[in-house]
Amino acid sequence: MRIKANDEQQFLEQVFVKRGFSTVNSQLLAETLVDADLRGISSHGIQRLAWYLRMVDDGTIQPQNSVKTLKESPTSLFLDANQNMGQIACFQAMTSLIQKAQKSSIAMAVIKNSNHFGTAGYWARMAVKKGLIGIATTNTRPLVVPTNATEAFLGSNAFAFTFPADPHPFVFDGATSVVSSGKIQVLAKNKQPIPGQWAVDADRQVVKNADEAEDLLATAAFTPHQKGGGVLTLGGNQEQNSNYKGFGNSLVVELLTGILAQGSISADTSVGKHDFSQFLMVIDPGFFGDLKQLQHDASAMFQRIRHLKHLPHTEIKIPGDREYRRYAENQQNGVVVDEQTAKELHQIGDQLNISVPHAVSNS
Amino acid sequence: MRIKANDEQQFLEQVFVKRGFSTVNSQLLAETLVDADLRGISSHGIQRLAWYLRMVDDGTIQPQNSVKTLKESPTSLFLDANQNMGQIACFQAMTSLIQKAQKSSIAMAVIKNSNHFGTAGYWARMAVKKGLIGIATTNTRPLVVPTNATEAFLGSNAFAFTFPADPHPFVFDGATSVVSSGKIQVLAKNKQPIPGQWAVDADRQVVKNADEAEDLLATAAFTPHQKGGGVLTLGGNQEQNSNYKGFGNSLVVELLTGILAQGSISADTSVGKHDFSQFLMVIDPGFFGDLKQLQHDASAMFQRIRHLKHLPHTEIKIPGDREYRRYAENQQNGVVVDEQTAKELHQIGDQLNISVPHAVSNS
Repeated sequence: MRIKANDEQQFLEQVFVKRGFSTVNSQLLAETLVDADLRGISSHGIQRLAWYLRMVDDGTIQPQNSVKTLKESPTSLFLDANQNMGQIACFQAMTSLIQKAQKSSIAMAVIKNSNHFGTAGYWARMAVKKGLIGIATTNTRPLVVPTNATEAFLGSNAFAFTFPADPHPFVFDGATSVVSSGKIQVLAKNKQPIPGQWAVDADRQVVKNADEAEDLLATAAFTPHQKGGGVLTLGGNQEQNSNYKGFGNSLVVELLTGILAQGSISADTSVGKHDFSQFLMVIDPGFFGDLKQLQHDASAMFQRIRHLKHLPHTEIKIPGDREYRRYAENQQNGVVVDEQTAKELHQIGDQLNISVPHAVSNS
Repeated sequence: MRIKANDEQQFLEQVFVKRGFSTVNSQLLAETLVDADLRGISSHGIQRLAWYLRMVDDGTIQPQNSVKTLKESPTSLFLDANQNMGQIACFQAMTSLIQKAQKSSIAMAVIKNSNHFGTAGYWARMAVKKGLIGIATTNTRPLVVPTNATEAFLGSNAFAFTFPADPHPFVFDGATSVVSSGKIQVLAKNKQPIPGQWAVDADRQVVKNADEAEDLLATAAFTPHQKGGGVLTLGGNQEQNSNYKGFGNSLVVELLTGILAQGSISADTSVGKHDFSQFLMVIDPGFFGDLKQLQHDASAMFQRIRHLKHLPHTEIKIPGDREYRRYAENQQNGVVVDEQTAKELHQIGDQLNISVPHAVSNS
């Protein structure tokens, strides 16, 4: 079904307030989920709500905790999210980094004791709205098998990068692994096979059945029921296709997040303390030249790429093209909510006595 | 054949001095090539010499030109390499960024009007020797086909990232594309087939014959004899294996180099002005915690990864493991020089009246 983005926002705000988050933080959390749904990134939208509330239930998330500043300089910031949601610390960090980068041209933040922060792109887009380059990364639970390994260790470790451009900014946003686990979840829900080399079993044989892959990932690395296997690094199953480069990209994120934050590395978030860490950066391109000119140059490059010779019946899309197109469509037609999530929303609504957004269409 | 690294260094220094570079710059250029050969990255070693000298011959490189500082702040640096080799501007930039990062925790540089800079890893390793995180990127000539495209546009765009660790630093260093063109050159020289999905023709059919691939790349994009096709982005030939993520990574480098520098983007370096641009960054991990502890934590993570369950007869290598192993071996046994390069060295030696290093073994 589809629901109106405004209705989704209001529903989520009420839920978060009832579960103990401040009004301001409830608005923020709701906005990050609605924004993901509007952009067609359903895996990071309202379907995460039930999981967020489970983490409140089990005490992983402490909705009243305030972010603590551990260290600060004109270019750098080290925050403790204090076991609250990642969005809350990231909003504070990005707001500060934008100011710092406007003065110092470049600024970075590390956040520890954090948790899921929505899409990485949300934070990188905060910077680009001010004509700045934004970078955002996070570690995650262990899902990804290093080159030649038969068990997961690395997170799917999101990475986002934005750059000012027209008609919309360049927004590169995704897991550093070949796919995020969310993409496999969506196929499993719809009983569809996995179309590419995404996941392998304990013998590094490619798994095509999405249910089977889901099952492997649910019993992720370092749990008592670990089955082995996991999501592949970018580059796929074979070393000869340079899957060690995808492995390297994932390791770069592990170093900038769990290691620099002195929090859990992805491998250690399945047992014991379930904390994620984030790394954010803002760069002012205006240090190097006139922003309008740089933005024009980037846009002209993208336009040339969109029009390169290409295979028939395909399109060359610049990172961001798809999500800005969907944003306009979903703003108009409502965001898509899958059946399972719709059921969860009704349970949550009943429990908290909040009316659930009505469907504006069944598609 | 193999030659001693010291002999290689002396030979190269003499060649560069005779071709008009200052003594200091000649030592630096020689060192970057010898260092690549010692690490087993032959594609960026002495085999580049003939190409470097051709660029001096045709005026692309002006060996007497000095680097110009266009703009500088406590965190940021914008240099004009002034049509000299990339190594010369990068050494100046990295030396400055290390000092800036020691004071401001983070610093970045963009270099325009530059050229080949050796391996990206060389510059990132300069930072890690001081206990700092180093990042180095460059654009290149157009070799890489975007997702769905049938002609090259992007550079193979190198990216290096270092982090302090034991027994050696983490050194991730390579093309953002599935492979660099140098790897295909090596196979073509040795008449070996391409083992993976590395290059495609104008119909996006995978090319297995290295000679054929070489021929495609030699008539690279935007030249009068362009054949179409090129090197694949990381992720391979299929959109379903997320090759748009490799495309995105390559675009990030294009934006940070050619666009920020207001120089040529990779696509435009095959015709007209043959300039490359570089982006460098240094981060002080010590802002966030005790360096010794961070180094220990990173090393412990790498050690756990090396010992994960893995396929029989394989090894899990952390980025840097292979090159530090080869460095020790090649320091001992001499660096490998292929037959074609050996011939070129004799021609250069004869022409400049410089004696060529003698072979210490034929293997």
